[in-house]
Amino acid sequence: MSHVLILGGDGYLGWPTALYFSERGYQVTVVDNYFRRNACTELDTGMLYPVPTLLERAEIWQKQTGREIKVVIADLADPERMRGLFDGSLQYDWALDKAFTGIAQTIVHYAEQPSAPYSLLDYKHADITLSNNLRVTNNLLWAVRDFARDSHIIKLGTMGEYGTPDIDIEEGWLEIEHKGRKDKFLFPRQAGSLYHTTKVMDTDLMWFGVRMWNLRVTDLMQGPVYGIETEESRIDDRLNTIFNYDEIFGTIVNRFITQAVIGYPLTVYGAGGQTRGYLNIKDTLQCVHMSELTPAESGELRIFNQIMETFSVNQLAEMTQRVGVSRGLEVEIKSIENPRKEAEEHYYNPTYQGLQAIGVKPNYLTDEVMNSMFDIVERYRDNIREDVIFKGVKWG
Amino acid sequence: MSHVLILGGDGYLGWPTALYFSERGYQVTVVDNYFRRNACTELDTGMLYPVPTLLERAEIWQKQTGREIKVVIADLADPERMRGLFDGSLQYDWALDKAFTGIAQTIVHYAEQPSAPYSLLDYKHADITLSNNLRVTNNLLWAVRDFARDSHIIKLGTMGEYGTPDIDIEEGWLEIEHKGRKDKFLFPRQAGSLYHTTKVMDTDLMWFGVRMWNLRVTDLMQGPVYGIETEESRIDDRLNTIFNYDEIFGTIVNRFITQAVIGYPLTVYGAGGQTRGYLNIKDTLQCVHMSELTPAESGELRIFNQIMETFSVNQLAEMTQRVGVSRGLEVEIKSIENPRKEAEEHYYNPTYQGLQAIGVKPNYLTDEVMNSMFDIVERYRDNIREDVIFKGVKWG
Repeated sequence: MSHVLILGGDGYLGWPTALYFSERGYQVTVVDNYFRRNACTELDTGMLYPVPTLLERAEIWQKQTGREIKVVIADLADPERMRGLFDGSLQYDWALDKAFTGIAQTIVHYAEQPSAPYSLLDYKHADITLSNNLRVTNNLLWAVRDFARDSHIIKLGTMGEYGTPDIDIEEGWLEIEHKGRKDKFLFPRQAGSLYHTTKVMDTDLMWFGVRMWNLRVTDLMQGPVYGIETEESRIDDRLNTIFNYDEIFGTIVNRFITQAVIGYPLTVYGAGGQTRGYLNIKDTLQCVHMSELTPAESGELRIFNQIMETFSVNQLAEMTQRVGVSRGLEVEIKSIENPRKEAEEHYYNPTYQGLQAIGVKPNYLTDEVMNSMFDIVERYRDNIREDVIFKGVKWG
Repeated sequence: MSHVLILGGDGYLGWPTALYFSERGYQVTVVDNYFRRNACTELDTGMLYPVPTLLERAEIWQKQTGREIKVVIADLADPERMRGLFDGSLQYDWALDKAFTGIAQTIVHYAEQPSAPYSLLDYKHADITLSNNLRVTNNLLWAVRDFARDSHIIKLGTMGEYGTPDIDIEEGWLEIEHKGRKDKFLFPRQAGSLYHTTKVMDTDLMWFGVRMWNLRVTDLMQGPVYGIETEESRIDDRLNTIFNYDEIFGTIVNRFITQAVIGYPLTVYGAGGQTRGYLNIKDTLQCVHMSELTPAESGELRIFNQIMETFSVNQLAEMTQRVGVSRGLEVEIKSIENPRKEAEEHYYNPTYQGLQAIGVKPNYLTDEVMNSMFDIVERYRDNIREDVIFKGVKWG
C-alpha cells in the first residue's frame, strides 16, 4: 500500500487531498501547524462554517469509513521536525496504530502561506511568508536528499510565477536561441506579489535540488481554485474543507458567489481584464493523483500548468451575476480602484495540455457547477460576515 | 555629506568598503552581527591573522585618520533591527557622536552568508544560509519601501547566479523572441550551489520590489574576489580585512597563494577547465563607488557583471605556480577528485562592459599583483594552518 505524506494537510487543498488518497486505499499521513486557521483568527477573516481540528477530522473520517489518516501537528519550518517525518523520530498526534509508517513514496507539499494579500499586509507578514515558504521547501529537499532520494515530491507552484508576459507561456521550460547558440532554461518568471515571488524562489530551489541530488520533483503550476465539496466530503458536512470568502484567503470564484448570496456587489478591481487560468478543487485532486501515478524521473523537475480554462475577472463576475440572478438574487457588479499593481489588460496565452495527457479529465466551470456552489453557500448564509469581505490590502 | 550604510560591514568586502567611503569624506555606518567570524570559529577555518572587533577597528581608523565610522552590531534577519537603521530607534555601538545619522542615501548590502561549501555542509548550514540571506534582503526591501524609497540599494550578487549556460551571458537581462512575440526578462539563472541559489532568489525578490515599489537597485554580479590590502588599510596592519585561506571561506586566488607559501600542492578540482570571471578587491570598492555616484533610477533594477577578466582554474594554478617558483618556492599542482557537481569544461562568454562604462578602471591580475599578495601572506606564514585548507565538502 503506497504511502502519501501530505504537508499542509489542514488547508483548503491539503485536507481534500488526504481524503481522496485515503478513499483510494493509500496510507496517508497529514502534517500541519494550523498556520492557515490561526491566520484566519488573527486577521479575523471569517469562515463560511467552523471546521473541526485535524485530529477530530481524522477521527470522523475513520468512524465514517474505517480508514485511517495519521496526523502530525508540527511546524515544518523547523528542520528537525521535517526530518522526524523521515527518520521515524516523529510522534503521531492521531493514529490508530502509533508505529512509524515508514518513509512515504510520495510527498505532496502544500505547506505554504498561500495568500498574496497576506504577504503584502506589512513587513511582518512578508517576513512570515518568506521564512515559512522557503524554509519548509528547503528543509523538505534536504530531508529527501538525506533519507529518501527515490521518493517523489509533488509541489504546488502557481501560474502566478509566470506573471503576464507578452509571449506564450509554456509548461515550465523554454528553449532560448541567442547570438546563434541555444540552451534550455526555466521559463522566465516574474510574479505579481510577494507570495507568488516565494513560489518563484521555491522553483529555483527545487531545480537546484533536482540537478545536484537527482531528486524526483513534479511542480504543479496551479491557477486559482474554486469549489467546496468533493466526492469524499459529501458523506459528512464536518469533512468539508475550510472555506474562506474574504479578500485575503478567499479565492475569487468562492468570494464572488458568497458576495452574491448576501447582496454584496461583486468587487471587480479596475478594468477587470485580468485573465488567469482556473480549476475546480476536484481537478486539483485528480492532478495530484495522476502525478502520483506517473512520477517524475530521478533528476527530473517535471512542470505542469495546472489550469483547465481561462477567464477574465469580468467574465467571472458576469457568470456569477447570471447564475445569481437566475436564483432570484440581486447581483450588482461594481468596479473599484485596483489595490493591486497589475496589468488590467494584457496578453495571456498559456499552454496546459500536460496534465490531460497523463489522464486528468477537466471539470469545467459551468452554470450547473456554480449553482451547486450557491446551494452550499446559501445553506451557511447566516454565517457570512459582510464586514470581512473587503479590506483593501494595497500592493503599493 | 552623503551617507552610506554598509550592511555586513565586518566582512571581507564590507570593511574595506567602509574605509574607502570614509576616506572620501562620506558619512559611513557599518552594521554586522559577526556572522562570518563566528562561523570561522565554529568551523575552525583559521585566518591569516586575527582581526580586531568592529568597534576596535572603528577606533583605530578614527585615531589614525580623524574620520568616524559608526558601528551597529545587529542581526538584520530580525526585521525590527533592520528598521531601526531607518527609523532612528537603533543605538550605535560605537560612534563619536551618538545622535542618529539619519536615513542613508545609499545602502550597500553585503550582509549574506557568502560561501558555497558552507551552504552545503549539511541541512543546518543550508537552513542558516537560506534564512539569513533571504530574510535580510526582504527586510531591507521593506524598510526602504516604508522609510526611504529614494535611497539607492547597491546589492552584491554573483556571476554564479548565471551558472555556465551554453549561450553568451548578458548583463542581467535578455530579450526573448518566442513564437513570433517578444519580451524582455531577467537573464536565465541556474546556480551551482545553495549559496549561489539564494542569490538568484535575492534577484527575484529585488526585481519584485523594484516593480512594485519603484525602488532604486543596483545588483553587482560579482566574480570571486582576490586581494588583501587596499589603499586605506595600508596605514595600519590592524585595518586589513579578514583573510581566509581555507576551502570554505577562502576564495581561490587567496587560497592558492597561501597553499604555495607553505608548500601545500595547489588543489585543482577535476579537469580544472572551470572558467569564471575574477576581480581585485580594489575593483570591488571602485565598482561600488562608481555605482553610488551614478545611482539606479527609481523603478530600475540595474545589473552589472562585476568581473574584470576570466581565468580557468588551471590558468590560476599555473600563474600561482609561476610566481611562486620565481620567489624560490616549490609549487606543485595536484588534480583531485572534484567534490563539487559542476561542468569541468564548458562554454563561457560573459559580457562585462557596464562598470567600465561608468568609470571603473580595472586592476588586472598580473605577476606583480600576485607578488605583492605573496609578500603579505609570507609575513604571516607562521599563522597558516595546513590542516584547515581542505575539508572536501561534497556537493552530493
